[in-house]
Amino acid sequence: MSLIDALNWRYAVKKMNGQPVEQEKVDKIIAAAHLAPTSSGLQPFKIIVVTNQELKEKIAPIAFNQSQVIDSSHLLIFAANENYTEEGIDEVFDRMNTERGLPLDTTDAYKTQLKGMLLNRTAEENFNHAARQAYIAFGIAIAEAAVLKVDATPMEGFNGPALDELLGLDKKGLKSVTLLPLGYRDEAGDWLVNLKKVRTPKQEFLIELK
Amino acid sequence: MSLIDALNWRYAVKKMNGQPVEQEKVDKIIAAAHLAPTSSGLQPFKIIVVTNQELKEKIAPIAFNQSQVIDSSHLLIFAANENYTEEGIDEVFDRMNTERGLPLDTTDAYKTQLKGMLLNRTAEENFNHAARQAYIAFGIAIAEAAVLKVDATPMEGFNGPALDELLGLDKKGLKSVTLLPLGYRDEAGDWLVNLKKVRTPKQEFLIELK
Repeated sequence: MSLIDALNWRYAVKKMNGQPVEQEKVDKIIAAAHLAPTSSGLQPFKIIVVTNQELKEKIAPIAFNQSQVIDSSHLLIFAANENYTEEGIDEVFDRMNTERGLPLDTTDAYKTQLKGMLLNRTAEENFNHAARQAYIAFGIAIAEAAVLKVDATPMEGFNGPALDELLGLDKKGLKSVTLLPLGYRDEAGDWLVNLKKVRTPKQEFLIELK
Repeated sequence: MSLIDALNWRYAVKKMNGQPVEQEKVDKIIAAAHLAPTSSGLQPFKIIVVTNQELKEKIAPIAFNQSQVIDSSHLLIFAANENYTEEGIDEVFDRMNTERGLPLDTTDAYKTQLKGMLLNRTAEENFNHAARQAYIAFGIAIAEAAVLKVDATPMEGFNGPALDELLGLDKKGLKSVTLLPLGYRDEAGDWLVNLKKVRTPKQEFLIELK
């Protein structure tokens, strides 16, 4: 098994046909994102799943009226923490140690070092770091969707602050970074479906130091 | 097929056994990263593959002497473009249109809009954006490695500017953002191998808007 066939099958679907994605598949896509590795296991992001049609219609103009927002059955929103907090870091390590049956102070030296680093950074630096962690999960969710033959369109083209305000994410200390509508391609209505997938030539993409 | 089993199998290996990863598998991991979607198809990053042992030994102290740098057979370095350039954007769209058999001006309206956005941002904003694209590929590479039962340790703990200088990436307009050593776990020597994988509870990770 390899992801290559699935990754060649997928593309950024421009037109979805409205057919709903089976909940079991959506659950797997979210589970894959949930299992994604993150820096020090901090998982500094959340996924918001919008299935409410009225809400999707309110989101559409915030996302330049891209039709996938409305025609997808499940709109995933990846939202990163706007900053790291001491309490949040403690919570992660307490849970880790508890679930591993280890004393809570097992990781104190590491945790102190981590706090010294993260809590002395600006909120902007930490948000950028958190966003990158969300993108690892985003990549893995895209791969899992492709493996399950579910179409998913990675989208950065939306007004983040407007979306955060609409959904109250700002009040939860979150900033949306990407959208991933899930659905099925409308082959007849999609201008991109039959166009060749193009990538940078491998010899430009790859630098080998042997 | 689903990625869930592979993602549960993988973990951030702390000790590798020195067994080399088959080139065919490395090629697939790189191909998966190469197929990753990126914003407007810009692919603003490269992968550097280090197999030279002396070079890995020079990199080790730059990465806090984490043993995987040396014990991996292939050290992947994901390096993002430090900025977007007009020439770089033109190149991507020219190649896309050429490979699709379309006139070069097919995408002019879109390209003009894209340039208006990206070329008016600061280098820092563009680098952060490019880095996120690299992280999509990073996530997909991690998933592909897991599917192939190759161990891979996602690593952000290294001195980026020092690595960039050592490898001359700075002169190529690149900044390293993550490492991904590939190898095989040394179960006897790895303190993490038998510890439970812990994640945020799903009810905290997921917000459902029905």
